[in-house]
Amino acid sequence: MSENYAGLQSVIWTGDKLDLLDQRLLPEEIVYLPLTTAQDVWEAIRHLKVRGAPAIGIAAAYGVVLGSRSAASMEEWNAAVQKEADYLATSRPTAVNLFWALDRMKAAAARFAGEGLSLDQCKEALMREAIAIQSEDEETNRLIGEHALTLFKDGMGVLTHCNAGGLATAKYGTALAPFYLAKEQGIQLRVFADETRPVLQGARLTAFELQQAGVDVTLICDNMAGMVMSKGWVDAVIVGTDRVAANGDVANKIGTYSVAVLAKAHGIPFYVACPLSTIDLETPTGADIPIEERGAEEITEGFGKRTAPQGVKVFNPAFDVTPHEYVTAIITEKGIVQAPFEENLRKLFEN
Amino acid sequence: MSENYAGLQSVIWTGDKLDLLDQRLLPEEIVYLPLTTAQDVWEAIRHLKVRGAPAIGIAAAYGVVLGSRSAASMEEWNAAVQKEADYLATSRPTAVNLFWALDRMKAAAARFAGEGLSLDQCKEALMREAIAIQSEDEETNRLIGEHALTLFKDGMGVLTHCNAGGLATAKYGTALAPFYLAKEQGIQLRVFADETRPVLQGARLTAFELQQAGVDVTLICDNMAGMVMSKGWVDAVIVGTDRVAANGDVANKIGTYSVAVLAKAHGIPFYVACPLSTIDLETPTGADIPIEERGAEEITEGFGKRTAPQGVKVFNPAFDVTPHEYVTAIITEKGIVQAPFEENLRKLFEN
Repeated sequence: MSENYAGLQSVIWTGDKLDLLDQRLLPEEIVYLPLTTAQDVWEAIRHLKVRGAPAIGIAAAYGVVLGSRSAASMEEWNAAVQKEADYLATSRPTAVNLFWALDRMKAAAARFAGEGLSLDQCKEALMREAIAIQSEDEETNRLIGEHALTLFKDGMGVLTHCNAGGLATAKYGTALAPFYLAKEQGIQLRVFADETRPVLQGARLTAFELQQAGVDVTLICDNMAGMVMSKGWVDAVIVGTDRVAANGDVANKIGTYSVAVLAKAHGIPFYVACPLSTIDLETPTGADIPIEERGAEEITEGFGKRTAPQGVKVFNPAFDVTPHEYVTAIITEKGIVQAPFEENLRKLFEN
Repeated sequence: MSENYAGLQSVIWTGDKLDLLDQRLLPEEIVYLPLTTAQDVWEAIRHLKVRGAPAIGIAAAYGVVLGSRSAASMEEWNAAVQKEADYLATSRPTAVNLFWALDRMKAAAARFAGEGLSLDQCKEALMREAIAIQSEDEETNRLIGEHALTLFKDGMGVLTHCNAGGLATAKYGTALAPFYLAKEQGIQLRVFADETRPVLQGARLTAFELQQAGVDVTLICDNMAGMVMSKGWVDAVIVGTDRVAANGDVANKIGTYSVAVLAKAHGIPFYVACPLSTIDLETPTGADIPIEERGAEEITEGFGKRTAPQGVKVFNPAFDVTPHEYVTAIITEKGIVQAPFEENLRKLFEN
């Protein structure tokens, strides 16, 4: 792992506590909360101090470690692991990564106990399991970044939308990973970050974490992407995704589809970065991905101030689907996939 | 003129005072300020209570009427008209429409005096001149709306960007004029209003004035336009413009170009509505139109709260240029102009 990573880490395990970046305070304040109990972690997840599916899973795994470390007997330890994992699972009921990480911690604990390790050895091994969850996520992202970086050259302008960054993961992020690796390697990229209405993840998180890392980032409003492209400032677009369908259709934050159409009109490649776990071969096409609609108030009074008339009708989809025809390539930890996506995505899982 | 106009008027002359809609309070409060002196009007213009070039010109014209009506002699009246017009011209130094309206009022006063009218007749004639400025603007917009409405059919969805509405003019606006006329005629249109970052004129003004008029309007974020088009909900786009070049290139609020590209990709016609006075045959192409860049704070703290990191680099162009290849037609008070624009725009001024 590189020692040169310039980004902020959202979750830092110090060996005896979890230092968690309070993302609610970003970008105005950088505050790490020292968490020492499972309840601290539960509250941090519940109150959105940590966000991003991988980062939540990692924090919860450490929560199990913190919640079971004072057990005085194997019996007490086994019971504590079960109880704290079940408790942590209630912190955010819809977070699939959270459940995945907690199940993995429970299974690991049962395995260690079954292998006849001593209580101290079990505690140590369980801590190593949490560290492994974190470092595997970091490794996945680093590989995504390395593959992505082969597509970029020194001096290029790259536009991104929303935040698929280090703050949401162990390190590097997905779409932002190549920017951090480029920084480590002295490759200059100029990044344009869409602010990403309505919730402004691009302004609050992407611009923030890249700025912190010393990456050359310029914040724009979503509606400026076309103009910036027409000026010849953008050589590639890279975004993350919430789910990739079997045919290569990509669901991501609202506005991604508009960016993809604009990129195509300007002859600019459109890349999607994600781990294999985001590719869902059970979902045939983008039309099969349900699109969440969110409350009007995100648009009409998103930042504590009303900016639209009372009672106005609002359409607020949280995501959109970019058809695979607009996707130049999907970049995973196992390499870069191009059309035909149906066939090539399937191959990723075969070898 | 129609009696059925359902929109809010920004400037209402009651015969002895000017009732001016305080646009700074929109969309939260609808307050008409009764202005009875030239100084009242000067302050309303200076403090942005009235916005939109035509509306400012109209208000200033009435300001001259209010400032000269108590004159006790022809000499006093002549002096008052000059003095108040010069004073009102200082209210917003860059507003071309303001100077145009004040010059017209001064010229009219000189003409009336020269024709040997009595003091009372002069006062009456000058008031009629201000009313004429207002009703000519209204008539221009109504004609634009009538021409535009021939392009729309009952049940259509139409998307607009920014605010080219009744609030900026005597009545109807330009791009919004067909929606008001459709409402008067019982034609149902579904309007989608882009909120128009960074200053949110679409949310604060367009959604507001159409909602007030009972027009079916749905507010969206700018980055949702592509998704809404892909759903088949948009049959046409119509926008206003700040300047049309001789070749048909169109400068308008930032984001207009992105909408035009998206419209073309979805096979949706893209219309531009404007009076002839906005077409500048002296400007050969869009590349000759200077694009104002505005302060970063409109993007980083536009909602009354900081939403981006301190010191982040920002690109904030106020306008963009849509090349004429993306423009299906330009709709003026003299009719609808299509390609070849160079030739057909010139013809508008010939007959």
